Amino acid sequence: MQKGILTVLSGFSGAGKGTAMKRLMEKYEDYALSISATTRKPREGEVDGREYFFKETEEFEKMIAQDELIEYARYVNHYYGTPRSYVEEQLEKGKDVILEIEIQGALKVKEKFPDTLLVFVTPPSAEELRRRLIGRGTETMEVIEERLARAKEEARGIDCYDCLIINDDLETCVDELHAVIQNEKKKVMRNAEFIAKIREELEEL
Amino acid sequence: MQKGILTVLSGFSGAGKGTAMKRLMEKYEDYALSISATTRKPREGEVDGREYFFKETEEFEKMIAQDELIEYARYVNHYYGTPRSYVEEQLEKGKDVILEIEIQGALKVKEKFPDTLLVFVTPPSAEELRRRLIGRGTETMEVIEERLARAKEEARGIDCYDCLIINDDLETCVDELHAVIQNEKKKVMRNAEFIAKIREELEEL
Repeated sequence: MQKGILTVLSGFSGAGKGTAMKRLMEKYEDYALSISATTRKPREGEVDGREYFFKETEEFEKMIAQDELIEYARYVNHYYGTPRSYVEEQLEKGKDVILEIEIQGALKVKEKFPDTLLVFVTPPSAEELRRRLIGRGTETMEVIEERLARAKEEARGIDCYDCLIINDDLETCVDELHAVIQNEKKKVMRNAEFIAKIREELEEL
Repeated sequence: MQKGILTVLSGFSGAGKGTAMKRLMEKYEDYALSISATTRKPREGEVDGREYFFKETEEFEKMIAQDELIEYARYVNHYYGTPRSYVEEQLEKGKDVILEIEIQGALKVKEKFPDTLLVFVTPPSAEELRRRLIGRGTETMEVIEERLARAKEEARGIDCYDCLIINDDLETCVDELHAVIQNEKKKVMRNAEFIAKIREELEEL
Protein backbone atom coordinates (compact mmCIF):
# COMPACT_ATOMS: atom_id res chain seq x y z
CA MET A 1 0.00 0.00 0.00
CA GLN A 2 1.16 3.51 -0.83
CA LYS A 3 1.83 5.86 2.08
CA GLY A 4 -0.49 8.84 2.36
CA ILE A 5 0.43 12.24 0.96
CA LEU A 6 1.40 14.98 3.36
CA THR A 7 0.10 18.32 2.09
CA VAL A 8 0.71 21.74 3.52
CA LEU A 9 -1.99 24.25 2.67
CA SER A 10 -1.15 27.92 3.00
CA GLY A 11 -2.71 31.04 1.68
CA PHE A 12 -3.71 34.57 2.55
CA SER A 13 -5.91 34.96 5.58
CA GLY A 14 -9.30 35.31 3.91
CA ALA A 15 -8.52 32.99 0.99
CA GLY A 16 -11.00 30.45 2.32
CA LYS A 17 -8.56 27.70 3.36
CA GLY A 18 -10.52 26.68 6.43
CA THR A 19 -13.82 26.36 4.57
CA ALA A 20 -12.16 24.52 1.69
CA MET A 21 -10.53 21.99 4.03
CA LYS A 22 -13.76 21.36 5.91
CA ARG A 23 -15.60 20.75 2.62
CA LEU A 24 -12.78 18.50 1.33
CA MET A 25 -13.09 16.26 4.40
CA GLU A 26 -16.88 16.02 3.98
CA LYS A 27 -16.67 15.28 0.26
CA TYR A 28 -13.82 12.75 0.08
CA GLU A 29 -12.81 9.93 2.40
CA ASP A 30 -9.08 9.92 1.73
CA TYR A 31 -8.16 12.53 4.30
CA ALA A 32 -7.20 12.82 7.93
CA LEU A 33 -7.21 16.36 9.24
CA SER A 34 -4.29 17.17 11.44
CA ILE A 35 -5.32 19.23 14.42
CA SER A 36 -2.88 21.92 15.46
CA ALA A 37 -1.97 22.87 18.97
CA THR A 38 -2.15 26.56 19.86
CA THR A 39 -1.89 28.89 22.82
CA ARG A 40 -4.44 31.35 21.44
CA LYS A 41 -7.84 31.46 23.11
CA PRO A 42 -10.76 29.65 21.43
CA ARG A 43 -13.02 31.79 19.21
CA GLU A 44 -16.77 31.43 19.63
CA GLY A 45 -17.89 27.95 18.56
CA GLU A 46 -14.38 26.45 18.53
CA VAL A 47 -14.01 23.22 20.47
CA ASP A 48 -10.80 21.87 22.05
CA GLY A 49 -9.64 18.81 20.08
CA ARG A 50 -11.72 19.73 17.04
CA GLU A 51 -10.47 23.06 15.63
CA TYR A 52 -7.33 23.10 17.80
CA PHE A 53 -5.79 21.62 20.88
CA PHE A 54 -5.84 24.68 23.09
CA LYS A 55 -2.77 24.76 25.34
CA GLU A 56 -1.31 26.96 28.03
CA THR A 57 2.02 28.51 27.03
CA GLU A 58 3.85 26.33 29.54
CA GLU A 59 2.36 23.10 28.18
CA PHE A 60 3.17 24.16 24.62
CA GLU A 61 6.79 24.89 25.50
CA LYS A 62 7.04 21.43 27.06
CA MET A 63 5.89 19.90 23.74
CA ILE A 64 8.58 21.88 21.92
CA ALA A 65 11.22 20.71 24.38
CA GLN A 66 10.20 17.07 23.94
CA ASP A 67 10.26 17.34 20.12
CA GLU A 68 6.59 16.44 19.86
CA LEU A 69 5.88 18.99 17.12
CA ILE A 70 6.71 18.75 13.40
CA GLU A 71 6.81 22.51 13.26
CA TYR A 72 5.69 25.42 15.34
CA ALA A 73 5.64 29.17 14.99
CA ARG A 74 4.76 32.24 16.99
CA TYR A 75 2.25 34.53 15.31
CA VAL A 76 0.57 37.56 16.91
CA ASN A 77 1.92 36.54 20.36
CA HIS A 78 0.63 32.97 20.20
CA TYR A 79 2.20 29.63 19.46
CA TYR A 80 0.82 27.35 16.73
CA GLY A 81 2.25 23.87 16.08
CA THR A 82 1.64 20.43 14.58
CA PRO A 83 1.77 17.37 16.84
CA ARG A 84 4.02 14.80 15.14
CA SER A 85 2.79 11.34 16.18
CA TYR A 86 -0.75 11.62 14.80
CA VAL A 87 0.50 12.77 11.39
CA GLU A 88 2.98 9.93 11.07
CA GLU A 89 0.40 7.30 12.07
CA GLN A 90 -2.13 8.53 9.50
CA LEU A 91 0.41 8.61 6.64
CA GLU A 92 1.49 5.05 7.44
CA LYS A 93 -2.15 3.96 7.27
CA GLY A 94 -2.35 5.45 3.77
CA LYS A 95 -4.42 8.45 4.81
CA ASP A 96 -3.63 11.81 3.24
CA VAL A 97 -2.93 14.46 5.82
CA ILE A 98 -3.34 18.19 5.29
CA LEU A 99 -1.71 20.79 7.48
CA GLU A 100 -2.99 24.33 7.33
CA ILE A 101 0.05 26.40 8.22
CA GLU A 102 1.83 29.53 7.04
CA ILE A 103 4.95 29.77 4.98
CA GLN A 104 7.72 29.51 7.61
CA GLY A 105 6.06 26.39 9.01
CA ALA A 106 5.54 25.02 5.48
CA LEU A 107 9.24 25.29 4.73
CA LYS A 108 10.17 23.59 8.02
CA VAL A 109 7.83 20.69 7.23
CA LYS A 110 9.29 20.37 3.70
CA GLU A 111 12.78 20.21 5.25
CA LYS A 112 11.81 17.34 7.55
CA PHE A 113 9.55 15.57 5.03
CA PRO A 114 10.93 16.38 1.57
CA ASP A 115 8.03 14.80 -0.29
CA THR A 116 5.48 17.11 1.27
CA LEU A 117 3.23 18.80 -1.30
CA LEU A 118 3.05 22.55 -0.74
CA VAL A 119 -0.19 24.14 -1.94
CA PHE A 120 -0.99 27.84 -1.89
CA VAL A 121 -4.62 29.01 -2.03
CA THR A 122 -5.46 32.48 -3.22
CA PRO A 123 -8.61 34.42 -4.04
CA PRO A 124 -8.83 35.49 -7.71
CA SER A 125 -7.69 39.05 -6.90
CA ALA A 126 -6.45 41.31 -4.11
CA GLU A 127 -9.71 43.27 -4.25
CA GLU A 128 -11.67 40.05 -3.66
CA LEU A 129 -9.38 39.23 -0.72
CA ARG A 130 -10.20 42.56 0.91
CA ARG A 131 -13.92 42.09 0.23
CA ARG A 132 -13.87 38.68 1.95
CA LEU A 133 -11.97 39.93 4.98
CA ILE A 134 -14.45 42.78 5.46
CA GLY A 135 -17.45 40.54 4.69
CA ARG A 136 -16.52 38.12 7.46
CA GLY A 137 -17.49 40.80 9.95
CA THR A 138 -15.52 39.16 12.76
CA GLU A 139 -12.48 41.44 12.74
CA THR A 140 -11.82 45.13 13.36
CA MET A 141 -10.55 47.26 10.46
CA GLU A 142 -7.20 47.38 12.22
CA VAL A 143 -6.91 43.60 12.11
CA ILE A 144 -8.04 43.58 8.47
CA GLU A 145 -5.32 46.08 7.55
CA GLU A 146 -2.78 43.92 9.40
CA ARG A 147 -3.91 40.86 7.41
CA LEU A 148 -3.61 42.70 4.11
CA ALA A 149 -0.13 43.89 5.03
CA ARG A 150 0.73 40.30 5.88
CA ALA A 151 -0.71 39.11 2.57
CA LYS A 152 1.75 41.38 0.75
CA GLU A 153 4.61 39.64 2.55
CA GLU A 154 3.15 36.17 2.01
CA ALA A 155 2.75 36.82 -1.72
CA ARG A 156 6.55 37.05 -1.96
CA GLY A 157 6.79 33.45 -0.74
CA ILE A 158 4.48 31.81 -3.29
CA ASP A 159 7.45 30.67 -5.38
CA CYS A 160 8.38 28.20 -2.64
CA TYR A 161 5.13 26.29 -3.21
CA ASP A 162 4.46 23.47 -5.63
CA CYS A 163 0.89 24.27 -6.62
CA LEU A 164 -1.35 27.29 -6.77
CA ILE A 165 -5.12 27.03 -6.46
CA ILE A 166 -7.38 29.97 -7.14
CA ASN A 167 -10.39 29.89 -4.84
CA ASP A 168 -13.10 31.55 -6.87
CA ASP A 169 -15.86 28.96 -6.46
CA LEU A 170 -15.69 26.74 -3.34
CA GLU A 171 -16.65 23.42 -4.96
CA THR A 172 -14.21 23.93 -7.84
CA CYS A 173 -11.47 24.86 -5.39
CA VAL A 174 -12.14 21.73 -3.31
CA ASP A 175 -12.13 19.46 -6.36
CA GLU A 176 -8.91 21.01 -7.62
CA LEU A 177 -7.29 20.59 -4.24
CA HIS A 178 -8.38 16.94 -4.18
CA ALA A 179 -7.02 16.45 -7.70
CA VAL A 180 -3.57 17.92 -7.03
CA ILE A 181 -3.20 15.79 -3.90
CA GLN A 182 -4.42 12.54 -5.47
CA ASN A 183 -2.22 13.16 -8.49
CA GLU A 184 0.83 13.15 -6.30
CA LYS A 185 0.31 9.39 -6.07
CA LYS A 186 1.18 9.08 -9.75
CA LYS A 187 4.65 10.55 -9.22
CA VAL A 188 7.38 8.09 -10.20
CA MET A 189 9.24 8.74 -6.93
CA ARG A 190 6.18 7.63 -4.97
CA ASN A 191 5.94 4.33 -6.86
CA ALA A 192 9.37 2.89 -6.17
CA GLU A 193 7.91 -0.37 -4.88
CA PHE A 194 5.82 -1.05 -7.99
CA ILE A 195 8.72 -0.13 -10.29
CA ALA A 196 11.10 -2.50 -8.46
CA LYS A 197 8.52 -5.28 -8.73
CA ILE A 198 7.89 -4.96 -12.48
CA ARG A 199 11.64 -4.72 -13.18
CA GLU A 200 12.16 -7.96 -11.30
CA GLU A 201 9.28 -9.68 -13.10
CA LEU A 202 10.65 -8.61 -16.50
CA GLU A 203 14.05 -10.08 -15.63
CA GLU A 204 12.40 -13.37 -14.76
CA LEU A 205 10.16 -13.68 -17.83
CA MET B 1 -4.23 32.51 -21.24
CA GLN B 2 -1.99 29.72 -20.03
CA LYS B 3 0.15 27.95 -22.62
CA GLY B 4 -0.71 24.32 -23.28
CA ILE B 5 1.12 21.49 -21.56
CA LEU B 6 3.58 19.43 -23.58
CA THR B 7 3.44 15.81 -22.46
CA VAL B 8 5.63 12.96 -23.56
CA LEU B 9 3.99 9.58 -23.21
CA SER B 10 6.23 6.53 -23.16
CA GLY B 11 5.77 2.98 -22.08
CA PHE B 12 6.45 -0.62 -22.96
CA SER B 13 5.27 -1.72 -26.38
CA GLY B 14 2.02 -3.43 -25.45
CA ALA B 15 1.18 -1.09 -22.56
CA GLY B 16 -1.73 0.31 -24.53
CA LYS B 17 -0.38 3.84 -25.12
CA GLY B 18 -1.89 4.15 -28.59
CA THR B 19 -5.38 3.08 -27.51
CA ALA B 20 -5.22 5.31 -24.43
CA MET B 21 -4.23 8.36 -26.47
CA LYS B 22 -6.96 7.76 -29.04
CA ARG B 23 -9.56 7.49 -26.27
CA LEU B 24 -8.19 10.59 -24.50
CA MET B 25 -8.67 12.66 -27.65
CA GLU B 26 -12.25 11.38 -28.07
CA LYS B 27 -13.16 12.00 -24.44
CA TYR B 28 -11.63 15.42 -23.79
CA GLU B 29 -11.32 18.51 -25.94
CA ASP B 30 -8.11 19.95 -24.48
CA TYR B 31 -5.71 18.04 -26.67
CA ALA B 32 -3.95 18.27 -29.98
CA LEU B 33 -2.31 15.06 -31.07
CA SER B 34 1.09 15.54 -32.56
CA ILE B 35 1.62 13.34 -35.56
CA SER B 36 5.07 11.85 -35.91
CA ALA B 37 7.02 11.44 -39.09
CA THR B 38 8.47 8.00 -39.78
CA THR B 39 10.23 6.05 -42.47
CA ARG B 40 8.61 2.75 -41.51
CA LYS B 41 5.95 1.34 -43.84
CA PRO B 42 2.26 1.83 -42.91
CA ARG B 43 0.58 -1.07 -41.07
CA GLU B 44 -2.83 -2.18 -42.28
CA GLY B 45 -5.39 0.54 -41.69
CA GLU B 46 -2.82 3.29 -41.03
CA VAL B 47 -3.31 6.46 -43.05
CA ASP B 48 -0.62 8.99 -44.00
CA GLY B 49 -1.16 12.19 -42.02
CA ARG B 50 -3.35 10.45 -39.44
CA GLU B 51 -1.25 7.85 -37.60
CA TYR B 52 2.05 9.10 -39.06
CA PHE B 53 3.52 11.17 -41.82
CA PHE B 54 5.13 8.37 -43.82
CA LYS B 55 8.40 9.58 -45.35
CA GLU B 56 11.16 8.22 -47.53
CA THR B 57 14.53 8.06 -45.77
CA GLU B 58 15.88 10.85 -47.95
CA GLU B 59 13.00 13.20 -47.11
CA PHE B 60 13.36 12.43 -43.43
CA GLU B 61 17.06 13.21 -43.47
CA LYS B 62 16.30 16.53 -45.13
CA MET B 63 13.94 17.37 -42.24
CA ILE B 64 16.73 16.57 -39.78
CA ALA B 65 19.18 18.77 -41.68
CA GLN B 66 16.73 21.69 -41.66
CA ASP B 67 16.09 21.35 -37.91
CA GLU B 68 12.40 20.73 -38.50
CA LEU B 69 12.16 18.02 -35.82
CA ILE B 70 11.99 18.45 -32.03
CA GLU B 71 13.52 15.01 -31.66
CA TYR B 72 14.08 11.96 -33.78
CA ALA B 73 15.41 8.49 -33.24
CA ARG B 74 16.24 5.37 -35.21
CA TYR B 75 14.49 2.24 -33.98
CA VAL B 76 14.52 -1.16 -35.76
CA ASN B 77 16.08 0.45 -38.86
CA HIS B 78 13.53 3.22 -39.16
CA TYR B 79 13.46 6.88 -38.28
CA TYR B 80 10.77 8.35 -36.05
CA GLY B 81 10.55 12.08 -35.30
CA THR B 82 8.36 14.96 -34.15
CA PRO B 83 7.78 17.91 -36.48
CA ARG B 84 8.42 21.09 -34.49
CA SER B 85 6.22 23.84 -35.93
CA TYR B 86 2.86 22.15 -35.35
CA VAL B 87 3.69 21.44 -31.69
CA GLU B 88 4.73 25.02 -30.98
CA GLU B 89 1.63 26.47 -32.64
CA GLN B 90 -0.72 24.27 -30.63
CA LEU B 91 0.95 25.06 -27.28
CA GLU B 92 0.73 28.79 -27.99
CA LYS B 93 -2.99 28.37 -28.68
CA GLY B 94 -3.36 26.78 -25.20
CA LYS B 95 -3.85 23.26 -26.54
CA ASP B 96 -2.18 20.41 -24.68
CA VAL B 97 0.04 18.35 -26.93
CA ILE B 98 1.00 14.73 -26.32
CA LEU B 99 3.96 13.07 -27.99
CA GLU B 100 4.13 9.31 -27.95
CA ILE B 101 7.86 8.62 -28.04
CA GLU B 102 10.40 6.39 -26.36
CA ILE B 103 12.85 7.29 -23.66
CA GLN B 104 15.82 8.72 -25.62
CA GLY B 105 13.42 10.99 -27.49
CA ALA B 106 11.65 11.90 -24.26
CA LEU B 107 14.89 13.07 -22.69
CA LYS B 108 15.79 15.12 -25.78
CA VAL B 109 12.41 16.86 -25.66
CA LYS B 110 12.81 17.58 -21.93
CA GLU B 111 16.19 19.15 -22.66
CA LYS B 112 14.74 21.51 -25.27
CA PHE B 113 11.47 22.15 -23.40
CA PRO B 114 12.27 21.81 -19.67
CA ASP B 115 8.67 22.04 -18.55
CA THR B 116 7.62 18.98 -20.54
CA LEU B 117 5.68 16.46 -18.44
CA LEU B 118 7.09 12.94 -18.86
CA VAL B 119 4.56 10.17 -18.31
CA PHE B 120 5.29 6.45 -18.38
CA VAL B 121 2.47 3.96 -18.97
CA THR B 122 2.80 0.37 -17.84
CA PRO B 123 0.55 -2.67 -17.62
CA PRO B 124 -0.03 -3.88 -14.04
CA SER B 125 2.55 -6.69 -14.39
CA ALA B 126 5.15 -8.19 -16.74
CA GLU B 127 2.94 -11.24 -17.21
CA GLU B 128 0.08 -9.03 -18.36
CA LEU B 129 2.46 -7.27 -20.78
CA ARG B 130 3.36 -10.60 -22.39
CA ARG B 131 -0.30 -11.61 -22.54
CA ARG B 132 -1.20 -8.39 -24.38
CA LEU B 133 1.67 -8.69 -26.84
CA ILE B 134 0.66 -12.26 -27.70
CA GLY B 135 -3.06 -11.40 -27.70
CA ARG B 136 -2.56 -8.70 -30.33
CA GLY B 137 -1.87 -11.45 -32.82
CA THR B 138 -0.14 -9.06 -35.22
CA GLU B 139 3.45 -9.99 -34.44
CA THR B 140 5.62 -13.10 -34.70
CA MET B 141 6.96 -14.69 -31.50
CA GLU B 142 10.39 -13.42 -32.48
CA VAL B 143 9.16 -9.82 -32.52
CA ILE B 144 7.35 -10.38 -29.23
CA GLU B 145 10.55 -11.66 -27.60
CA GLU B 146 12.41 -8.63 -28.97
CA ARG B 147 9.78 -6.31 -27.45
CA LEU B 148 10.03 -8.01 -24.05
CA ALA B 149 13.81 -7.71 -24.14
CA ARG B 150 13.38 -4.06 -24.96
CA ALA B 151 10.89 -3.64 -22.10
CA LYS B 152 13.58 -4.84 -19.70
CA GLU B 153 15.85 -2.05 -20.88
CA GLU B 154 13.10 0.54 -20.87
CA ALA B 155 12.17 -0.36 -17.29
CA ARG B 156 15.59 0.90 -16.19
CA GLY B 157 14.70 4.36 -17.52
CA ILE B 158 11.43 4.86 -15.63
CA ASP B 159 13.17 6.98 -12.99
CA CYS B 160 13.66 9.72 -15.58
CA TYR B 161 9.89 10.19 -15.82
CA ASP B 162 7.65 12.45 -13.73
CA CYS B 163 4.56 10.28 -13.52
CA LEU B 164 3.69 6.61 -13.72
CA ILE B 165 0.28 5.41 -14.85
CA ILE B 166 -0.75 1.80 -14.55
CA ASN B 167 -2.98 0.80 -17.45
CA ASP B 168 -5.20 -1.88 -15.96
CA ASP B 169 -8.57 -0.57 -17.10
CA LEU B 170 -8.62 1.68 -20.20
CA GLU B 171 -11.12 4.30 -18.99
CA THR B 172 -9.37 4.66 -15.63
CA CYS B 173 -6.02 4.97 -17.38
CA VAL B 174 -7.36 7.68 -19.70
CA ASP B 175 -8.91 9.65 -16.83
CA GLU B 176 -5.71 9.43 -14.83
CA LEU B 177 -3.68 10.58 -17.80
CA HIS B 178 -6.04 13.52 -18.25
CA ALA B 179 -5.80 14.35 -14.54
CA VAL B 180 -1.98 14.36 -14.40
CA ILE B 181 -1.80 16.61 -17.46
CA GLN B 182 -4.50 19.06 -16.34
CA ASN B 183 -2.96 19.20 -12.88
CA GLU B 184 0.25 20.49 -14.35
CA LYS B 185 -1.61 23.76 -14.86
CA LYS B 186 -1.78 24.22 -11.09
CA LYS B 187 2.01 24.25 -10.76
CA VAL B 188 3.29 27.52 -9.32
CA MET B 189 5.93 27.79 -12.07
CA ARG B 190 3.17 27.72 -14.72
CA ASN B 191 1.28 30.58 -13.07
CA ALA B 192 3.94 33.27 -13.05
CA GLU B 193 1.64 35.76 -14.76
CA PHE B 194 -1.18 35.43 -12.22
CA ILE B 195 1.28 35.61 -9.31
CA ALA B 196 2.89 38.78 -10.65
CA LYS B 197 -0.56 40.33 -11.08
CA ILE B 198 -1.82 39.62 -7.55
CA ARG B 199 1.47 40.82 -6.02
CA GLU B 200 1.09 44.08 -7.86
CA GLU B 201 -2.54 44.45 -6.81
CA LEU B 202 -1.63 43.84 -3.16
CA GLU B 203 1.02 46.55 -3.31
CA GLU B 204 -1.55 48.99 -4.67
CA LEU B 205 -4.35 48.27 -2.15
